[in-house]
Amino acid sequence: MTTRVGIIGATGAVGQRLIQLLDPHPEFEVAALTASEDSTGSTYEEAAKWRISAPIPERVADMEVGETSPEAIPDDVSLVFSSLPSSVGAAVEPAFCEAGYIVSSNSSNGRADEDVPLTIPEVNADHIDLIEVQRDRRGWDGALVKNPNCSTITMVPPLAALEEAFGLERVTVSTLQAVSGAGYSGVTSMEIIDNAIPHIGGEEAKMETESRKLLGTFDGAEVEWLDARVDASCNRIPTLDGHLENVWTDTVAEATPDAAAEAMGSYPGLDLHSSPDRLVHVFEDPKRPQPRLDRDRENGMAIAAGGLQPTEGGIQFNCLAHNTLRGAAGASLLNGELLLENGYL
Amino acid sequence: MTTRVGIIGATGAVGQRLIQLLDPHPEFEVAALTASEDSTGSTYEEAAKWRISAPIPERVADMEVGETSPEAIPDDVSLVFSSLPSSVGAAVEPAFCEAGYIVSSNSSNGRADEDVPLTIPEVNADHIDLIEVQRDRRGWDGALVKNPNCSTITMVPPLAALEEAFGLERVTVSTLQAVSGAGYSGVTSMEIIDNAIPHIGGEEAKMETESRKLLGTFDGAEVEWLDARVDASCNRIPTLDGHLENVWTDTVAEATPDAAAEAMGSYPGLDLHSSPDRLVHVFEDPKRPQPRLDRDRENGMAIAAGGLQPTEGGIQFNCLAHNTLRGAAGASLLNGELLLENGYL
Amino acid sequence: MTTRVGIIGATGAVGQRLIQLLDPHPEFEVAALTASEDSTGSTYEEAAKWRISAPIPERVADMEVGETSPEAIPDDVSLVFSSLPSSVGAAVEPAFCEAGYIVSSNSSNGRADEDVPLTIPEVNADHIDLIEVQRDRRGWDGALVKNPNCSTITMVPPLAALEEAFGLERVTVSTLQAVSGAGYSGVTSMEIIDNAIPHIGGEEAKMETESRKLLGTFDGAEVEWLDARVDASCNRIPTLDGHLENVWTDTVAEATPDAAAEAMGSYPGLDLHSSPDRLVHVFEDPKRPQPRLDRDRENGMAIAAGGLQPTEGGIQFNCLAHNTLRGAAGASLLNGELLLENGYL
Amino acid sequence: MTTRVGIIGATGAVGQRLIQLLDPHPEFEVAALTASEDSTGSTYEEAAKWRISAPIPERVADMEVGETSPEAIPDDVSLVFSSLPSSVGAAVEPAFCEAGYIVSSNSSNGRADEDVPLTIPEVNADHIDLIEVQRDRRGWDGALVKNPNCSTITMVPPLAALEEAFGLERVTVSTLQAVSGAGYSGVTSMEIIDNAIPHIGGEEAKMETESRKLLGTFDGAEVEWLDARVDASCNRIPTLDGHLENVWTDTVAEATPDAAAEAMGSYPGLDLHSSPDRLVHVFEDPKRPQPRLDRDRENGMAIAAGGLQPTEGGIQFNCLAHNTLRGAAGASLLNGELLLENGYL
Repeated sequence: MTTRVGIIGATGAVGQRLIQLLDPHPEFEVAALTASEDSTGSTYEEAAKWRISAPIPERVADMEVGETSPEAIPDDVSLVFSSLPSSVGAAVEPAFCEAGYIVSSNSSNGRADEDVPLTIPEVNADHIDLIEVQRDRRGWDGALVKNPNCSTITMVPPLAALEEAFGLERVTVSTLQAVSGAGYSGVTSMEIIDNAIPHIGGEEAKMETESRKLLGTFDGAEVEWLDARVDASCNRIPTLDGHLENVWTDTVAEATPDAAAEAMGSYPGLDLHSSPDRLVHVFEDPKRPQPRLDRDRENGMAIAAGGLQPTEGGIQFNCLAHNTLRGAAGASLLNGELLLENGYL
Repeated sequence: MTTRVGIIGATGAVGQRLIQLLDPHPEFEVAALTASEDSTGSTYEEAAKWRISAPIPERVADMEVGETSPEAIPDDVSLVFSSLPSSVGAAVEPAFCEAGYIVSSNSSNGRADEDVPLTIPEVNADHIDLIEVQRDRRGWDGALVKNPNCSTITMVPPLAALEEAFGLERVTVSTLQAVSGAGYSGVTSMEIIDNAIPHIGGEEAKMETESRKLLGTFDGAEVEWLDARVDASCNRIPTLDGHLENVWTDTVAEATPDAAAEAMGSYPGLDLHSSPDRLVHVFEDPKRPQPRLDRDRENGMAIAAGGLQPTEGGIQFNCLAHNTLRGAAGASLLNGELLLENGYL
Repeated sequence: MTTRVGIIGATGAVGQRLIQLLDPHPEFEVAALTASEDSTGSTYEEAAKWRISAPIPERVADMEVGETSPEAIPDDVSLVFSSLPSSVGAAVEPAFCEAGYIVSSNSSNGRADEDVPLTIPEVNADHIDLIEVQRDRRGWDGALVKNPNCSTITMVPPLAALEEAFGLERVTVSTLQAVSGAGYSGVTSMEIIDNAIPHIGGEEAKMETESRKLLGTFDGAEVEWLDARVDASCNRIPTLDGHLENVWTDTVAEATPDAAAEAMGSYPGLDLHSSPDRLVHVFEDPKRPQPRLDRDRENGMAIAAGGLQPTEGGIQFNCLAHNTLRGAAGASLLNGELLLENGYL
Repeated sequence: MTTRVGIIGATGAVGQRLIQLLDPHPEFEVAALTASEDSTGSTYEEAAKWRISAPIPERVADMEVGETSPEAIPDDVSLVFSSLPSSVGAAVEPAFCEAGYIVSSNSSNGRADEDVPLTIPEVNADHIDLIEVQRDRRGWDGALVKNPNCSTITMVPPLAALEEAFGLERVTVSTLQAVSGAGYSGVTSMEIIDNAIPHIGGEEAKMETESRKLLGTFDGAEVEWLDARVDASCNRIPTLDGHLENVWTDTVAEATPDAAAEAMGSYPGLDLHSSPDRLVHVFEDPKRPQPRLDRDRENGMAIAAGGLQPTEGGIQFNCLAHNTLRGAAGASLLNGELLLENGYL
């Protein structure tokens, strides 16, 4: 028996990746697709400009696309994946929650809200129970669960390993982000060939806040954010997929590169369907990870780390993740799998 | 009357750029070219695989390439530009100095030596008088003067402005470096298309040490290095020219972005022939500077800065310079112009 | 005394290049700028997203942008440059001609019309007098003059040299076109990084028809198109500027590569302000021309050719031109200069 | 029972791809690896700079690399794959053949020799029996079999379909080739970023001769080459893998695009292990095939075609294949599978 799921905002880049990841999936079955008004009534194949090189799954190609409202979702669907623009998400997601659907959302709206679980299952699965607080407070039958931004997801698992082993006081991060992170048409070729663009609006702030919530402690009532300083600078470079990040940490206890590598490499994973066998792949070669060579490890769901070096009072390292798989569609899916595992569906 | 100069290691990428910058030059005239043994006796045109799109200067094309030894340099040459691989530079440059030539060198050997001036003329022209200490100690008639690494040059002028205005305690820098920094054949297309490569061997260490020497104080006897912590992480990306850098600083006195921008933008330049009219161009648009759009400002000799933001206790900014002009050939040339201005030639 | 000119569609990529080329120009002075309705009343700086790395010319920055209709153009303007989308051009340009303005247009509408001069001044300046036929037929005081498509312009000068020297029977051409040819946002980075895209809609047909009209004979009444077969295949590749083309010709008389190179290299130019000193630069090195190395020759107004080889019954060669300079803005400007030279202004 | 095979020139780019394709293979088992002298005695892992993102197969990593001479190959090996530089291949391959080994070679030496089978199994499997002629003439116990150049392989299957259906009189082809075709270090990033390079030395000639031999007729004694004119122009562009080609044909019988698409799409394949299910994938979308989207179809062994259009007297189309899989390592492997199938091993 599979759980029937819906995808709202199904025609965008993340929606397409979700459809690819759900074709097939042992636990979930796509039962409803929605998009913006002008696509309503079309088949998915007509509505989506399918961008993925693998062909569009046959079953989904012929499905009718509905309007993005709870009425368009069959009653036997319990989980809805959302990858809407954040302004739309803010307007629409609460209606689905109120109508009883659990929404696993990749949209950035509400991620910092006190009663909204923001989770990377391998890192802070326990935060998922913030749903109870949310339901109490908002009177919803459904629930809203968020995954963080792609650039945040890339660095948080190795940081979680360091926090657990040594404690974190300060984190500084510089990102080299792929163009797919801006959506299919987000970066023109005239902008990025033989070029790099500093400052991705809003992204630095997301990395600074989301990482502290993810690494925070949930006591059953609220999440106490990690008390560490996080400074981020985000750059777009001419890569297709895979965000590479340079990270510096000041740690509470003294850390050696060997001990830090051990902490990262042995950081426990989960048994969820889309979880990688090993969460953090640690390289000895300081020239790895590299986006093109390492973004596809474990179906794009592993985090890669390397270049560990001592600094005065901390550890410097590089990390990498596939931004549209581990960093977006795969992140929402994994949260869905966690919700199922924990009995919320 | 122009000063006659030689170029040793004239066929490499930096040598070619030097020849381009000296064609013509109001103060200097190319009088001797040397290269590795197998080129000796050829014309420059035969010996060099000319890579620059502007044609090879006619006068230089027909010059005979000599052996890289003091004997190959006419006696009326007083200044020699060197852009040798550092292992060769270490072996060969002292012989030129001993033979009475002043060597303005882009090679990395000896940059950290106590009695070797490492200068960016607009930043620490006074360090040039370390030549006196050097001559006392080494008994040379000539002298050895160095310019820093291209990635160091990019950040030091804005950092110098901050140091002067607020004092620096800590600097963290991440670089997005162009492929030309590795030489014409240093990065293959298979390595870098749709990719980025972390860790440039030796480059991080150069940034950390050279910047502290450049920002240090010379009391007539020795340079006291800046007492600040500098952490660097260097990355290669698919750009042709222009190193972009993300920098975080902790300052001694409190700094606002406006005051920092003012300090950078008004940082004084020099009247040397190759100096830019304004040393640091400060952008308000946080998405600038960008390598392709901004590397050629003021003939590739200006530094561009932007994205100034407050951090807890400091200022975060981005900066950019043309790595083979301001960062290499132009840097050596500027040191040559400073030597002339200060009466050393 | 300079001629006052207007630019309609002034905010687009070609409009911006025109403004750059006219800043300053010894014969023309920008007196009016128009754009689409939502820009009307703004300054040019507000209306245009200025994309060129050189700063926006000061004089133009503050000019008010008018509506794209003859009423918005001062009476003392006699020449109007047009770079509108072809559907808009078809609707709007005739009104300007009727109102007495001479329109030098880069838009593709009307290029094949019997009474519309389609000119590359160095190749078929005499076709400009088709204006008389046009005025007779249409009753206009003004006139409509067109330059060809960027990919056509690239190959026609070398083909004209071959036609004149040997006669042409058949031409086959494959293009490797830069992304700027599709406009600033025409090709996304997700489409073109590590990729090439065959078939540029409409472009093949333009090359096949326009080249035959350009190489045709004007007898004072009509243009007899060149009677040769032309087959084209157009591709987009990851270059910023500069279209490279592989061309095969079957010639009437026998041609050797040497004689063909001689014919191309000595093909006469013109003395117009924007004409290159030498129209076709012929390379001996078969690996030239290359887009990045050769697109900027003579301010981007020269054509480069190379790789001349004999085939059974003809000559094979490669050619290159800067698509937004020689191939668009510069082409319209050159037509304007021809109109002035020939007394039409 | 698997056949034991050797790989000579095992450390190069094609050798590495072969090892990847043979890990595992139902019919073949790697039993010997050779490389240049300075690698002799090392393990394969030490000798090869492994460039493929998938990890080096464990079994092969520890194998000792031998000298490239028949003595280094165990007697129970019957098939040897060769991917040596052509000058080395010319010197070395005959010795292996004389020593009784059958050599399936990707090197370009000898491809045009009268008694050397040059085969694409799906196209001209019958040519393999030229081995009998070769053995008679050369007195070898072994045999030398070649696959064509990667750019030739890309166009020959669709051309074979057209030749069979309509007859070919003339073929003109322009290629847009990936950098991997030049080997891992063959094209530097400084050469190809924002650029394209015309003329690939020797490649045009290979396409012109090899295609006529492949499409020729074998009567048991000799191959009569196809009597058609073939003109090629080859270009390097900034793609990693996948050669895209524009092809024009003049056909003997009249051909429509529909009939040509039918001929290509139904061109029969083979049942060999590495053969694709369908040899030629024909696209309706004229903007396909594209290198990044279509090079990996059927494990990189399918040919993609599209953009079929009528010309005066023929058909124009585009085609694409993965140059290091279908065009090199996979081509040699497929020839090996054909040799096994036909009883030569």
